[in-house]
Amino acid sequence: MTMQTPYLLFLADAREVLSLKIAKGVVDWRPELCVGEIALPECTVTLGVPRLTLAEAKERGAKTLVIGMNNSGGTIAAHWVPTILEALDCGFDVASGLHQRLANIAEVRDAARRNNCQLFDVRHTTTDLKTATGLPRSGNRLLTVGTDCSVGKMYTALAVEKSMRARKLNADFVATGQSGIFISGKGLAIDCVIADFISGAVEQLSPDNEANHWDIIEGQGSLFHPSFAGVTLGLLHGAQPDAMILCHVENREYMRGMRAHKLPGLQETMEMNLLSARLTNPDARFVGISVNTVDLSASDSNAVLKKYEAEFQLPCVDPVRTGVEPIVDRIEELWPQA
Amino acid sequence: MTMQTPYLLFLADAREVLSLKIAKGVVDWRPELCVGEIALPECTVTLGVPRLTLAEAKERGAKTLVIGMNNSGGTIAAHWVPTILEALDCGFDVASGLHQRLANIAEVRDAARRNNCQLFDVRHTTTDLKTATGLPRSGNRLLTVGTDCSVGKMYTALAVEKSMRARKLNADFVATGQSGIFISGKGLAIDCVIADFISGAVEQLSPDNEANHWDIIEGQGSLFHPSFAGVTLGLLHGAQPDAMILCHVENREYMRGMRAHKLPGLQETMEMNLLSARLTNPDARFVGISVNTVDLSASDSNAVLKKYEAEFQLPCVDPVRTGVEPIVDRIEELWPQA
Repeated sequence: MTMQTPYLLFLADAREVLSLKIAKGVVDWRPELCVGEIALPECTVTLGVPRLTLAEAKERGAKTLVIGMNNSGGTIAAHWVPTILEALDCGFDVASGLHQRLANIAEVRDAARRNNCQLFDVRHTTTDLKTATGLPRSGNRLLTVGTDCSVGKMYTALAVEKSMRARKLNADFVATGQSGIFISGKGLAIDCVIADFISGAVEQLSPDNEANHWDIIEGQGSLFHPSFAGVTLGLLHGAQPDAMILCHVENREYMRGMRAHKLPGLQETMEMNLLSARLTNPDARFVGISVNTVDLSASDSNAVLKKYEAEFQLPCVDPVRTGVEPIVDRIEELWPQA
Repeated sequence: MTMQTPYLLFLADAREVLSLKIAKGVVDWRPELCVGEIALPECTVTLGVPRLTLAEAKERGAKTLVIGMNNSGGTIAAHWVPTILEALDCGFDVASGLHQRLANIAEVRDAARRNNCQLFDVRHTTTDLKTATGLPRSGNRLLTVGTDCSVGKMYTALAVEKSMRARKLNADFVATGQSGIFISGKGLAIDCVIADFISGAVEQLSPDNEANHWDIIEGQGSLFHPSFAGVTLGLLHGAQPDAMILCHVENREYMRGMRAHKLPGLQETMEMNLLSARLTNPDARFVGISVNTVDLSASDSNAVLKKYEAEFQLPCVDPVRTGVEPIVDRIEELWPQA
């Protein structure tokens, strides 16, 4: 699915930026795709982009209203609907990353039909998927993998894409989750496809490409997460990565949402990912480590990065604090032709 | 989902028993659930059960018409529909394991509603699923795992259940695929659930149980199959097996449907399954090997079983040729209380 840009971001009744993960991702990584934000009177936060009416946004060229708020139930609140209907009547497409489908709200579906506008429920793919072939593809692929969920796999992939593009390398971020889809305007929420098609969907997201091209594929979950490891493995097999970056968060004791499972070690995580990746790409290797050290002081962060660098002989960065240049240097060394 | 039994098996226009995998599984494993078969005039095969009219089947107590044929596209042919409609008008529920949904054929849906009958599209779950907790459950669990797809995981699980029940042990087969669902009358097609819920669905299929109870869970795919390993891993993590049986087919060179991937070795397959299983059950262990030697002579089959038995120090059977008693003996030795 490909969404029309630029976007108008709908903050709804958000009272903290944390609940605007989807909208904030777009502002952080694709500010050029955001003409501005629109919000209900109850909203108490801003993303620092112009606050516009629908008419003003339309005038500035916005094509799609993005529901930028992610409440815990993943539902579309009834008091958001009037804004959605008004947007459709103004000719906007509407996109949502929530669990509840826009297309299942009768008045929204009718308004879209009446105005000849599209609804994008990005968690619910309508793409015709195939099972994976396991066959090699041309071009190069990098995948971010993690010790756990929510450690910075999307952030790292986007930072690598940005750095590679700044170096005039031929690279594209490939989204596999909701936030990534809004940032890149396309992709598939891989945890929402039918289980049989996990690997096949990733093969479709990252097809044959030019010999010097890099797909920078956003990873999901962790091979060590008891709820989601199946998704992670299917993604890994479909991605057939040449290069992997290990993403980790420092100072987290338990797997996300789990009270009985500690985070695996970095060594163990790399070994399990290499063992698994080799099924569809025998040459898969790690090219760097990306550590989220947000909870550490600057000097502690530095010490941690140095420690891992010495231990694993890989460039080791905090993508927010240090950037990812050392990892991209390593990629250029290893694949000089690409 | 739980289907009403006994069944009337609809062979449609089958011209070979191979296309009747679903119906044949029920006849082989649950003959007491089949009052008979019904077929179109073009059908040239039989499953050896009484050929009945709808009225005769009704008289013998049949509750559900099972579409027993599995064509390659997974579609419901237009010329099957009159029989389905007639069955609904006679008060039968109708169940299908095909990809195309009964409920999506307007006249079938209308007839079901009119007659107050249920439609079961067993590949499409309507169960409300949750993500996995990873928490241990009471009771015991056995899972069949494989070097490849279609090596005998369902057959082995059913044979183990049968043997355990004959010994008055407290055991239930747990279906995770279409054929198994028709055989046991319930279950979930695990490759058809949304990827996020693979492990969670298996936790729901095999909840807390009595301390001496065994769930004998049907495995799917293989950790070494490039298309489906994600499903296999999610199933393994959700099953949290205490005991695993390795299922293998002798004399198959390539993974099913793959021309570039050879079958893994038995040692490698056991190691990968143990490594993966330990995430949610640190005590997981193998209790036997089940080899499909259908392509071998009796003496070659014997030699192969002896070889693996010596190599892995595990009871090694061909469930069709030798039965599974040695494996169940081993289970009784290891868990005398259960």
